[in-house]
Amino acid sequence: MPRPSFTLTRRVEFHETDAAGLMHFSNFYRWMEVCEHEWFRTLGLEIMSDGTAGHRRGWPRRDSSCTHLRPLRCGDLVRIRATLEEVSDSSLAYGFIFEKDRAGRWTEVARGRMTTVHVRQDRAGRMESEPMPPTVRAAFAPTS
Amino acid sequence: MPRPSFTLTRRVEFHETDAAGLMHFSNFYRWMEVCEHEWFRTLGLEIMSDGTAGHRRGWPRRDSSCTHLRPLRCGDLVRIRATLEEVSDSSLAYGFIFEKDRAGRWTEVARGRMTTVHVRQDRAGRMESEPMPPTVRAAFAPTS
Amino acid sequence: MPRPSFTLTRRVEFHETDAAGLMHFSNFYRWMEVCEHEWFRTLGLEIMSDGTAGHRRGWPRRDSSCTHLRPLRCGDLVRIRATLEEVSDSSLAYGFIFEKDRAGRWTEVARGRMTTVHVRQDRAGRMESEPMPPTVRAAFAPTS
Amino acid sequence: MPRPSFTLTRRVEFHETDAAGLMHFSNFYRWMEVCEHEWFRTLGLEIMSDGTAGHRRGWPRRDSSCTHLRPLRCGDLVRIRATLEEVSDSSLAYGFIFEKDRAGRWTEVARGRMTTVHVRQDRAGRMESEPMPPTVRAAFAPTS
Repeated sequence: MPRPSFTLTRRVEFHETDAAGLMHFSNFYRWMEVCEHEWFRTLGLEIMSDGTAGHRRGWPRRDSSCTHLRPLRCGDLVRIRATLEEVSDSSLAYGFIFEKDRAGRWTEVARGRMTTVHVRQDRAGRMESEPMPPTVRAAFAPTS
Repeated sequence: MPRPSFTLTRRVEFHETDAAGLMHFSNFYRWMEVCEHEWFRTLGLEIMSDGTAGHRRGWPRRDSSCTHLRPLRCGDLVRIRATLEEVSDSSLAYGFIFEKDRAGRWTEVARGRMTTVHVRQDRAGRMESEPMPPTVRAAFAPTS
Repeated sequence: MPRPSFTLTRRVEFHETDAAGLMHFSNFYRWMEVCEHEWFRTLGLEIMSDGTAGHRRGWPRRDSSCTHLRPLRCGDLVRIRATLEEVSDSSLAYGFIFEKDRAGRWTEVARGRMTTVHVRQDRAGRMESEPMPPTVRAAFAPTS
Repeated sequence: MPRPSFTLTRRVEFHETDAAGLMHFSNFYRWMEVCEHEWFRTLGLEIMSDGTAGHRRGWPRRDSSCTHLRPLRCGDLVRIRATLEEVSDSSLAYGFIFEKDRAGRWTEVARGRMTTVHVRQDRAGRMESEPMPPTVRAAFAPTS
C-alpha cells in the first residue's frame, strides 16, 4: 500500500541565499514546513486552531534533520516531495526529498525528516501533546 | 532638550547575508526592531501584553523606511543608534543611524525610520489603535 | 502612456509570521524583491552577473519604504503589483501595492517603494554605480 | 581528555517567533551556526576565504538535526553550548545543547547536531571537499 505523499515546486529566492552564494541550510527546514502546510491546506486541514477557554491547538516540531548532497543557488527550481512515514496517536513523521532541475532532469540535492506533534496549548502557554483529531487521521489515510 | 536615544551594537551574521555577499536589506528593518525592543526592555516596558477577554496589546508598524549608503558584510560590527523623534497619543516615531566599524572609526552605512502604533487586538484578531499606557510615555520622557 | 507593471500572487507562510500572529513587517520588503526578481526573470534579465577580472554586477537597494494599512496573517493570499515609477541612468524606482483576498475582493493592505542601483563590484568588494545595460532599459520600455 | 567546547548566550528576538508564539524551529539551526561562527572568530579562524584563480574555501553543512524538548518564546534568554564531537580530514561534527533561563536555572530546551565539510569552490561554483587547513585542526586541539 503506497504511503501518502505530496509534491511542491519552488524556486530559490535571493533572500534565501547567503554570502557563499548558496541557499542557507536553515531554509531547507522552512521548505519542509511550507510543503507540509500546503499538504494540510490541500486536504482541508488546519495548522492551528483556537479552542475554548483560550486553548489553541497546533503542531510544533519534535525532531528534524536534513542531509545535504548538493548546493542550491538563487533561481534554482526545486521539487520537494513529502511522504508520510509514520503516524502515531499524536504525531506525524514525514520524509522529504529535494530535487533540483538540471537541464530538465531532477537531481537529488537533499533529504530531510521532520516529526511533528499535535498539542494543546493553554492561555498561559503551557503545551501538552494530545491525540490528533480523527479528521487528520482520515485525511492522511491511504485511499486503497 | 535632547531627544531620548538608545544604542545597540551587533555583528552581521552569516544567515543575514545574501549571494551578493552583503547583508540583505530586509535585515536593517529587523535590526531597527531589535534595537527598539532592547530599548523597551531596558526601560522595563513590554512589547506585547495580554489583557482581559482575550485582548492583546502590541505595537505593529505603520511606516518604515531605510536609505542605504554603504554595504555591510558578514562579521561587520555595527552600531545602531535609535532616537525617539515623535510621540503622539498612540504612536512612536524613531530614527535610526547605522554605523560600521572601519579600522576603529564608525562610518555611517544606513539611516532608517519607523513609526509604530499602540493597538488593541480582540480575540478575532481585529486591531484598533489605542492611546499608549502612561508608563510608556513616562519612560520615554526626557529627563530634562 | 502606461507605466510598465508586473503582478505576483503569494500566500503568507507560517515562518513569515511572528508572535503577534501577523506577517512580520520585514517580509514586505522581501516580497518587493521577490516581485522585482520574478519580473526580471519574466523579461529575461539577470539579477547578478559575473564580468571579467572578478567583477560582478548587481542591483543593491538605495532606498526602501513601506506603509502598513492592514495586517496579514498566515495563509492569506496576497497580490503584489509592482510599477516602474522612475528610470535614471543607473537606477530603477518601483512602487508596490499589496492587496489581500477578503472573500473574493482584493483589499489594499500595504504600499511600498524601492529604489535599486546598478553597480559594479570589484574582487575586493568595492562597489560603484554604473549605467544599466541597454537590454534592461529596453526590456522595461513601454511597448507603445 | 575533555572535548573542546564553546558557549554563547542569546535572547529570542521577535522576528524569530511565529504565529504560534514560539521561536520558529528553523532558527535553532541558525543559532547553531552563529555559535559555530563565534567560536571560529574567538579562535582567529575564517569561515570563508578567497584563494587564487577565483577559488573560495568555505564550510557548507552536510548534516544537521535538532530535537525539541520545550518551546522558546520572545525574550527568552538562551545558553547554547557547542561541543566538537568528531574531526575528520575535511569535516567537523558539533553537538549543541540549548538551555533557557527559568527563574535563574538553566533548563534544557533542545539539542542539536551539525556536520560541516571544508570545501573548495571554483569560479563556476563547483565544490569539492578538501582537507581542512592545519590551523583549524590546531585551533580545535584539546589543550592538554
